[in-house]
Amino acid sequence: MSVNRAAATRVDVPRGLAGVVVTDTEIGDVRGVEGFYHYRQYSAVELAQTRGFEDVWHLLVHGGLPDAEQSAAFAARTAELRRLPDGVRAALPAIAAAGGDSGPLAGMRTALSLLGAAQGFRPVYDIDAARRREDTVVAAAAVPTLLTALHRLRSGLAPVEPRADLSYAANYLYMLTGVEPDPRKARAVEQYLISTIDHGFNASTFTARVIASTGADVAACLVGAVGALSGPLHGGAPSRALDTLDAIGTPERIDPWIRERVLAGERIMGFGHAVYRTEDPRSRMLREIALEFGGPRVDFAVEVERRVEAILAELKPGRELHTNVEFYAGVVMELCGLPRSMFTPTFAAGRVVGWSANILEQAEDSKIIRPVARYVGPGAPVKVPDAA
Amino acid sequence: MSVNRAAATRVDVPRGLAGVVVTDTEIGDVRGVEGFYHYRQYSAVELAQTRGFEDVWHLLVHGGLPDAEQSAAFAARTAELRRLPDGVRAALPAIAAAGGDSGPLAGMRTALSLLGAAQGFRPVYDIDAARRREDTVVAAAAVPTLLTALHRLRSGLAPVEPRADLSYAANYLYMLTGVEPDPRKARAVEQYLISTIDHGFNASTFTARVIASTGADVAACLVGAVGALSGPLHGGAPSRALDTLDAIGTPERIDPWIRERVLAGERIMGFGHAVYRTEDPRSRMLREIALEFGGPRVDFAVEVERRVEAILAELKPGRELHTNVEFYAGVVMELCGLPRSMFTPTFAAGRVVGWSANILEQAEDSKIIRPVARYVGPGAPVKVPDAA
Repeated sequence: MSVNRAAATRVDVPRGLAGVVVTDTEIGDVRGVEGFYHYRQYSAVELAQTRGFEDVWHLLVHGGLPDAEQSAAFAARTAELRRLPDGVRAALPAIAAAGGDSGPLAGMRTALSLLGAAQGFRPVYDIDAARRREDTVVAAAAVPTLLTALHRLRSGLAPVEPRADLSYAANYLYMLTGVEPDPRKARAVEQYLISTIDHGFNASTFTARVIASTGADVAACLVGAVGALSGPLHGGAPSRALDTLDAIGTPERIDPWIRERVLAGERIMGFGHAVYRTEDPRSRMLREIALEFGGPRVDFAVEVERRVEAILAELKPGRELHTNVEFYAGVVMELCGLPRSMFTPTFAAGRVVGWSANILEQAEDSKIIRPVARYVGPGAPVKVPDAA
Repeated sequence: MSVNRAAATRVDVPRGLAGVVVTDTEIGDVRGVEGFYHYRQYSAVELAQTRGFEDVWHLLVHGGLPDAEQSAAFAARTAELRRLPDGVRAALPAIAAAGGDSGPLAGMRTALSLLGAAQGFRPVYDIDAARRREDTVVAAAAVPTLLTALHRLRSGLAPVEPRADLSYAANYLYMLTGVEPDPRKARAVEQYLISTIDHGFNASTFTARVIASTGADVAACLVGAVGALSGPLHGGAPSRALDTLDAIGTPERIDPWIRERVLAGERIMGFGHAVYRTEDPRSRMLREIALEFGGPRVDFAVEVERRVEAILAELKPGRELHTNVEFYAGVVMELCGLPRSMFTPTFAAGRVVGWSANILEQAEDSKIIRPVARYVGPGAPVKVPDAA
């Protein structure tokens, strides 16, 4: 029942709080001019290239990379948490059936909310830091199980029980398909997942922090973040870049197709980025991964990229436009056998670790995040007319 | 996959965005110095005293009070929407069973998320304003049904099907108890619900707007808001003021109990407000309602209020401390037969209309709400150590 603390001084800021510093963070940052982003003090790309998902998860929520013992313990603990409580598992068919037009993230939103209640999550301000961290780990560990079970149920298939002997990423693919994945594909998905854990401040991360700032439980924060991610302006559609490849179809159609769009002022999906003035470092990493797989699809994607950049340089000189993360993320996820409807959910399976770190950091603060609004409607009070 | 648009200029603002104007609004405002708050151009208290909940709901989401025909049509439409889709109703026992330590709002969060998916809610940016409004009405109309069904299931009772011939408030009490309520109690709850619809900007309203600004569906926004409301710093515990009355116990214990707390520097629950320099207008209205019921509990509450104000004036001169909305809201809800565990959920049953109006207003904007964070951790990059 708290209210707007009508500060005597009102502060006018850019629309959408653009550029407004809402918090300090030790989690990471994006340096657009350099084409660099990092988690804690480490390059995110280097982490993706050299470490497993669980180690980076540990880095985010514990604040440091694990030593050998911690690494094994954390991997074992998170593997054990993949199994859902019975009450949650039993409710998944009803959640999947309700899915429909709202997309797979709506099911994940419901299932994660239920999981938090089933696990007895309590307000972050009522528990200590260790319990908070544990709650985030409990929730995040279950995300691949929830996502894949809902996907299979929607497809008329029985969910596949998680395996504790596989990595987070390998088990994700295993639960999705029911088949133990090719290690190269599992590793490619793992690298993608690591690369999406965090990327500066964004609307879902901010949502998680606003909810955490009220002291709500970890599930409340994560469910809000999933909701924000489901918005078209945020989670977007990582499959759009593949839709572009499909629409172009063949190499000889690349030039006319791109020229027509660019001259019509249309945006080419998978190109352009608000922050990076250079190539997107995620894009570069994912292209390398795609090239290791090789094949006609990858060759075609590389050719589209090359031609788009050339045509943009010709028609829009001075504007540095490169592929963004969506472009090669789509290519890599397709190579690894992920259906397009699972692209954004897979993104969430990585980002949930970033949300976790942000919730934990916010919970160390005790200040509610609550800006104000300016009333600009008709002057009040006007007498209420009698009911008709 | 959007990112922080690393604005060239960073704007430093007060902690927690206090006083930062995030948006213009035509929904309402709180004037703390005058002790006045309003919805659109009308006094909220006057609306509560002269209108039914559905008319004020119409005012909030349609922008104006309904004429006779609109009023009847809106009441009929919302009454019909109280009935839950079969898939949602079937899932409620599982949701109630998962409840546990997370409190009743966790169940409401899950159920509302499921309802949105079952109703096929789509991103607010993908649908027109009429459909958006309809989605908010569909969701809000179901809230009392969800809340009461979950409460009854947790208590080992079968849910009571909604009745379309009762008002929103009367049907809420009916579904809670299974008995058609005393009209005076139904009206008292209705007035309380109207008075809680909106009250300046607050963390749950802000959460709903951040999520809406990504274009996510109405359920995503409302579920985030419920999550924020479940935080101790926001939804608080409207039953705390009753706990204070219980702790004091008898009139002769008022003075020593209060003096001891005030001298120890403790806060007296139900007293003090961050905005109002006068009596809280909601408190005044709810006291009047309580006095109309009368009885020893009300007399005791009034006596506690009188003594607390006198003792505070004596021991903390110069500090204007009056009862806040929690104090008499608790007394009124108790008089109307609401169990304490349902106080915050009942608050949500009114506030959902305010969230709805805010989601609709935000969806008319197309600017994502996304501030930035300042990285203050160790300098990056540090070379990633080899895995142990």
